[in-house]
Amino acid sequence: MTGKPTTDELKRFFTRDTFANYVGIELLEVADGHATARLELKDHHLNGVGIPHGGAIFTLADLAFAAASNSRGQVAVAINVNISYLKATTGKALIAKAHEVSCNSKLASYTIEVADDEGEIVALMQGMVYRRSTKTG
Amino acid sequence: MTGKPTTDELKRFFTRDTFANYVGIELLEVADGHATARLELKDHHLNGVGIPHGGAIFTLADLAFAAASNSRGQVAVAINVNISYLKATTGKALIAKAHEVSCNSKLASYTIEVADDEGEIVALMQGMVYRRSTKTG
Amino acid sequence: MTGKPTTDELKRFFTRDTFANYVGIELLEVADGHATARLELKDHHLNGVGIPHGGAIFTLADLAFAAASNSRGQVAVAINVNISYLKATTGKALIAKAHEVSCNSKLASYTIEVADDEGEIVALMQGMVYRRSTKTG
Amino acid sequence: MTGKPTTDELKRFFTRDTFANYVGIELLEVADGHATARLELKDHHLNGVGIPHGGAIFTLADLAFAAASNSRGQVAVAINVNISYLKATTGKALIAKAHEVSCNSKLASYTIEVADDEGEIVALMQGMVYRRSTKTG
Repeated sequence: MTGKPTTDELKRFFTRDTFANYVGIELLEVADGHATARLELKDHHLNGVGIPHGGAIFTLADLAFAAASNSRGQVAVAINVNISYLKATTGKALIAKAHEVSCNSKLASYTIEVADDEGEIVALMQGMVYRRSTKTG
Repeated sequence: MTGKPTTDELKRFFTRDTFANYVGIELLEVADGHATARLELKDHHLNGVGIPHGGAIFTLADLAFAAASNSRGQVAVAINVNISYLKATTGKALIAKAHEVSCNSKLASYTIEVADDEGEIVALMQGMVYRRSTKTG
Repeated sequence: MTGKPTTDELKRFFTRDTFANYVGIELLEVADGHATARLELKDHHLNGVGIPHGGAIFTLADLAFAAASNSRGQVAVAINVNISYLKATTGKALIAKAHEVSCNSKLASYTIEVADDEGEIVALMQGMVYRRSTKTG
Repeated sequence: MTGKPTTDELKRFFTRDTFANYVGIELLEVADGHATARLELKDHHLNGVGIPHGGAIFTLADLAFAAASNSRGQVAVAINVNISYLKATTGKALIAKAHEVSCNSKLASYTIEVADDEGEIVALMQGMVYRRSTKTG
């Protein structure tokens, strides 16, 4: 693709993310430094005490982060991610929303909020990417 | 279980971690604030550019962290995790080793190193747990 | 003090923060999980390459974080802080704004944004506190 | 300076770090990705409850991190730092030791441990730098 990718091109790009597919994450929206992803919670997303696994919550937030950071048309790879777990949810689904805080030629920074289907914030993530000189797609 | 759980009891406890099982993570060792976990890399662990997904690496490190932090016999829940991604590996498996840096009655802190099967460090994690008054198991 | 402290009581409490005073930080506002602090940049805030020192930026953000997290009337101590440095500013002053993302009986979580006097975001912080059973003041 | 700076050249470089000087931090050692710094605790390092301020502890650890990451001869700027506070010390001095975990042409990663003069670990830091193409010195 040339120039800035369209939302459809970005969604297609992320259908190749086999781990996110395996976990069951759906990319709902992506454009201009923002993205939204959703995970319908099933038994295989739980941990030993029966609540959503930190790794599942992270992977959902990470997909929104990856989509947002790659939406500018330049390949972005995560270099640092910090996640705070705020609440053990009993909801049926989780939604992650990523938005860009800053972006320069080499580095960009994002915050990602994960909420359950009752609107409660479950986790808060802060992530940084290194932007390669190659194009997304 | 009463008192400090044995390694076998802890391993049994983590067989109930359905997400870690689903991802394919194996808990190799756990005792006294330390733990080691392993992930044999398969196609479903990759991201859109064909390298191990940040979420898969995180989930591996997170299991070692969870095992180490629950090994004292008191339930520990992750409250904050920071991960730095250091290298895009082409290895066939990943090993995560967690060790305890500090532990008091309410909070404990761990570092987790993820290396590939060529001995290269792939990611470095720092995690903190809140220790509940309930017992593990 | 009894019940929830007033803004004046909180400001008085933070005049006892000798390190923040020594650095030259001013607490502008604090109430209900939010706080704003300001640092007028002087020569002693710079690092070896002549830009504001990461430690000075951190200390400014940390004061806003401490004020916001202690504003509920219960003593809160920082347990984890993550900071991303986004831009090397050439401004004359920095402003940090903290806001609460979640708060339960034991733990609470905040984001703190540091901007320069030209409105550019310089740093982004995510912090977590442990809330003691003692009262602020 | 040309090539890899000597320890004396690096120490001289950090005498220009006016904020670290103002806080009272001493750089003890620096070479090959490692560094040690010390802070003798005085009244102006305390917070409102009379223990060492998170910002003072951070600034100490940050100087060891900056020295270690600049020791390779290439200018390194902090882009992300995560710090966990593990213990409220009553010691008279703090020592921070930084060591390099990984280093490539653009990015490098460090862990920094802060202990008091009784050998207790007070804080644990994980930091990442972006390495500019300019030389240190």
